[in-house]
Amino acid sequence: MHLTLGELAERLDAELHGNADVVIRSVAGIREAREGDITFVANRKYEAYLSDTQASAVIVPPGLPSGSIPALETKDPMRTYLEVLQIFEDEPDRPEAGIDATAVIAESAQIGENVAIGAHVVVEAGARIGNGVTLMAGAYVGHRTIVGVDCLLYPHVVLREDVEIGNRCILHPGVVIGSDGFGFAPGPDGHMKIPQIGKVIVGDDVEIGANSAIDRATTGVTRIGRGTKIDNLVHVAHNVEIGSDSILCAQVGISGSTRLGRQVTLAGQAGLIGHIEVGDRARVGAQGGVTKSIPPEESVSGYPAMNHSRAQRVYASMRHLPDLLRTVRDLERRIAELEGDASIGATEGTDEGTGNGRVRT
Amino acid sequence: MHLTLGELAERLDAELHGNADVVIRSVAGIREAREGDITFVANRKYEAYLSDTQASAVIVPPGLPSGSIPALETKDPMRTYLEVLQIFEDEPDRPEAGIDATAVIAESAQIGENVAIGAHVVVEAGARIGNGVTLMAGAYVGHRTIVGVDCLLYPHVVLREDVEIGNRCILHPGVVIGSDGFGFAPGPDGHMKIPQIGKVIVGDDVEIGANSAIDRATTGVTRIGRGTKIDNLVHVAHNVEIGSDSILCAQVGISGSTRLGRQVTLAGQAGLIGHIEVGDRARVGAQGGVTKSIPPEESVSGYPAMNHSRAQRVYASMRHLPDLLRTVRDLERRIAELEGDASIGATEGTDEGTGNGRVRT
Amino acid sequence: MHLTLGELAERLDAELHGNADVVIRSVAGIREAREGDITFVANRKYEAYLSDTQASAVIVPPGLPSGSIPALETKDPMRTYLEVLQIFEDEPDRPEAGIDATAVIAESAQIGENVAIGAHVVVEAGARIGNGVTLMAGAYVGHRTIVGVDCLLYPHVVLREDVEIGNRCILHPGVVIGSDGFGFAPGPDGHMKIPQIGKVIVGDDVEIGANSAIDRATTGVTRIGRGTKIDNLVHVAHNVEIGSDSILCAQVGISGSTRLGRQVTLAGQAGLIGHIEVGDRARVGAQGGVTKSIPPEESVSGYPAMNHSRAQRVYASMRHLPDLLRTVRDLERRIAELEGDASIGATEGTDEGTGNGRVRT
Repeated sequence: MHLTLGELAERLDAELHGNADVVIRSVAGIREAREGDITFVANRKYEAYLSDTQASAVIVPPGLPSGSIPALETKDPMRTYLEVLQIFEDEPDRPEAGIDATAVIAESAQIGENVAIGAHVVVEAGARIGNGVTLMAGAYVGHRTIVGVDCLLYPHVVLREDVEIGNRCILHPGVVIGSDGFGFAPGPDGHMKIPQIGKVIVGDDVEIGANSAIDRATTGVTRIGRGTKIDNLVHVAHNVEIGSDSILCAQVGISGSTRLGRQVTLAGQAGLIGHIEVGDRARVGAQGGVTKSIPPEESVSGYPAMNHSRAQRVYASMRHLPDLLRTVRDLERRIAELEGDASIGATEGTDEGTGNGRVRT
Repeated sequence: MHLTLGELAERLDAELHGNADVVIRSVAGIREAREGDITFVANRKYEAYLSDTQASAVIVPPGLPSGSIPALETKDPMRTYLEVLQIFEDEPDRPEAGIDATAVIAESAQIGENVAIGAHVVVEAGARIGNGVTLMAGAYVGHRTIVGVDCLLYPHVVLREDVEIGNRCILHPGVVIGSDGFGFAPGPDGHMKIPQIGKVIVGDDVEIGANSAIDRATTGVTRIGRGTKIDNLVHVAHNVEIGSDSILCAQVGISGSTRLGRQVTLAGQAGLIGHIEVGDRARVGAQGGVTKSIPPEESVSGYPAMNHSRAQRVYASMRHLPDLLRTVRDLERRIAELEGDASIGATEGTDEGTGNGRVRT
Repeated sequence: MHLTLGELAERLDAELHGNADVVIRSVAGIREAREGDITFVANRKYEAYLSDTQASAVIVPPGLPSGSIPALETKDPMRTYLEVLQIFEDEPDRPEAGIDATAVIAESAQIGENVAIGAHVVVEAGARIGNGVTLMAGAYVGHRTIVGVDCLLYPHVVLREDVEIGNRCILHPGVVIGSDGFGFAPGPDGHMKIPQIGKVIVGDDVEIGANSAIDRATTGVTRIGRGTKIDNLVHVAHNVEIGSDSILCAQVGISGSTRLGRQVTLAGQAGLIGHIEVGDRARVGAQGGVTKSIPPEESVSGYPAMNHSRAQRVYASMRHLPDLLRTVRDLERRIAELEGDASIGATEGTDEGTGNGRVRT
């Protein structure tokens, strides 16, 4: 696919500066861009890169000169850049609508309109697949599980029984939803499995990254709120509830029954213990180890997680610990000396000329 | 499925308080329970929830009044609750006994009695599948691998060649067992692969969570002991040995050749270096970074992991580090002043009235 | 398979000590070895194990006596041991060359010579599979994806569209390559997906562990350099670039756009933030949390990661923190006392006999 810069300007309703006939074939960051790419500069901070970029055109905000590079001027270059990305996004390589001959679909499964089911997909009895859904090769949809409209399940996604997926969700390869929660009780012969008879409900517009796993509830529901985005290799335990529009970065782990509010952000490898509450818009730093509830709006980091500003001061201080130990040992010695002097000065009064703290230690 | 409370009381050998005709349809925690659910209160700590619960009945210990809610009284409400969970657990949605037409089973594979093999399963040459085993859709059993009786392999489990799985094991979706250990030796052209020709032996009654990976030994055996339970996304490296009845929570990682005793507990995201020994009943806290062997019964946490009580004191102290640094700087200044005074007092003896530490710094 | 020690000596060009007729059937570490195994001792550090080993033979360096155990003497016992491992490595259990009847191969896919394609494999339109490649059961190769010669894809590997895999790569079960990067922009209705239209390029001789996930670039390329080895459950985000011959241990996570040089080592569970540079031969310790760029050759560890030697001193000091706090509180008290004395000594001069710091605090 290619467009001239003039054609792009028209589609994006942007003001054109420079040669309208430049051919744009793709999109790239300002440092990676080559001939044929369009890139963007959102603010003056990145203006310096303009002189070096190989891009054929650049999207700029009003008042930021693009030098010799042809430019599209818009109020929100980042937003315009997203629109360009969507224009140049290849037609997704989905299977065609219809059911591949190798797929195994239970008779009682309900398949919507315009559904594309790839090779070796399995849809079990009682499952319902909404209109416009794509199930790529090897995806598995368990008994009575519901997949909302326009969802995209990449290859080898596994949805166990009685799971509910909202509309327009994207599940990346290897995602597992509805696996048993990790629940055992002490028994006479070792750990006794607690049956996990709850379900998982995933809201609309949720995206879940490759090889992440969301466990079903023991009883009740493990819930992922509308619009929440989950990265790769994330673990969500049984009975966790995550509010809408939250962000869980890669390798995050959330223990059982913990509840997150809306627009919560958990950075990479953060871990949360079970049975706590994380308030709306709270944030946890990368690798943060959260051991107690977090109020709304609060940012925490470190292990155990504490207020982020405090954590920054604590960890900055930590670097000085070896010096601090030495200093304190030195102070101890000096104080002992002074105490020697002082006790001489204070209680032995008149012996000043001869006393010396060191001889007493 | 539904039972009256009277019928339940009889099956559970529990003492009935209140209306025997109440209909029970499911099981839930006291806060999530709705009409038709039975719940439980194990001790007085949770008694307060009784006034708010929507449950139709509650299991209580002797002497704990259930108020207006119909109740079953038993000595061990938690245990009774587990029994009720098992009663209400749906018949598992397994494929029927027999081999799905799309499965590919090698001629030399031995398949036991009453085995259920789902769609697109592959069983390679020389594999042996015990009686009563369920292999759900897309499961893969490698050459000469042995699966004990009554095992349940969820969709897309991969067992590579020469793996031995005990009886009654449950392997959740995406589990990989027998992948190559991570072993390389320096060679003239970079890292040289060390062939991984060992195996994995998994004991009876082991459960392994979604997308966990257990590597085969370089030579010899990677071993998971009887009754051990492993959560999601756990990594077990080559030649690791884990004793019986241990608990590995989600996202734990164990490096090569480390040995765990019996009834060890590793909390979420804990990491263990290689070639160490973890004694029976030792415990590692969440995110703990274990850098040396742990004696039996010991609890450790933190990074690097240390005795848990000590770690609690250390991490509690850490919060005070910025203040501590300030205090010590202040003390340094004050001591320098005092030393000024003291040296005046001590060596300049008679000048007391005029000397002041500050003037000397 | 078995060989006599004499036959082995000849194949390995090693000097034989002892009985040439001993039968060797396998290979094992010195502590695990049993009758029929050959083992090795690389240096005198492990000499003590020789008296206890059950091995039937041992590989030793010149000048290290093997006692009563038949031995092969070579200059580099570790290297010789690797060669023996390769000799005893079973013929890999790959599907035979050819395409399994259950595989679904697009007409426009190009399949090289001597390719083995197992059950339920899918190769999409425009994909190119090099000579000598093995695709085991359930592997998925997306549209236009290229797999170099002699690659081995274990069961259930997923390569999405437009991915390039070099020659001789080994991808373990459950590996996902080319999943969408985790990129969102704030929109009026919540997080707006940034299309991920870049690709992934994996160099020659790369090995990637079970259930690891490598995301495609937003635009441009996520790149894994030649000879790099990646362990299980590793996360590599969009636009990351990893140089050649690097080592990423299990459960490592690398955030977006971070660049690693050559021969970098990241130990288990280490995490790197995005947009930083890690120099050639830099090393990150287990669980290290890297928050800024690392110069070449530098070793770092801890959270936040700092120079490794410093980190060792810092974490050693940390254990003393509770004592340190107590000491400093004590010092404060003692200094206050001294100040009382000093102020008496300095300003009240002649009152020495009566002053006492304690009365002033």
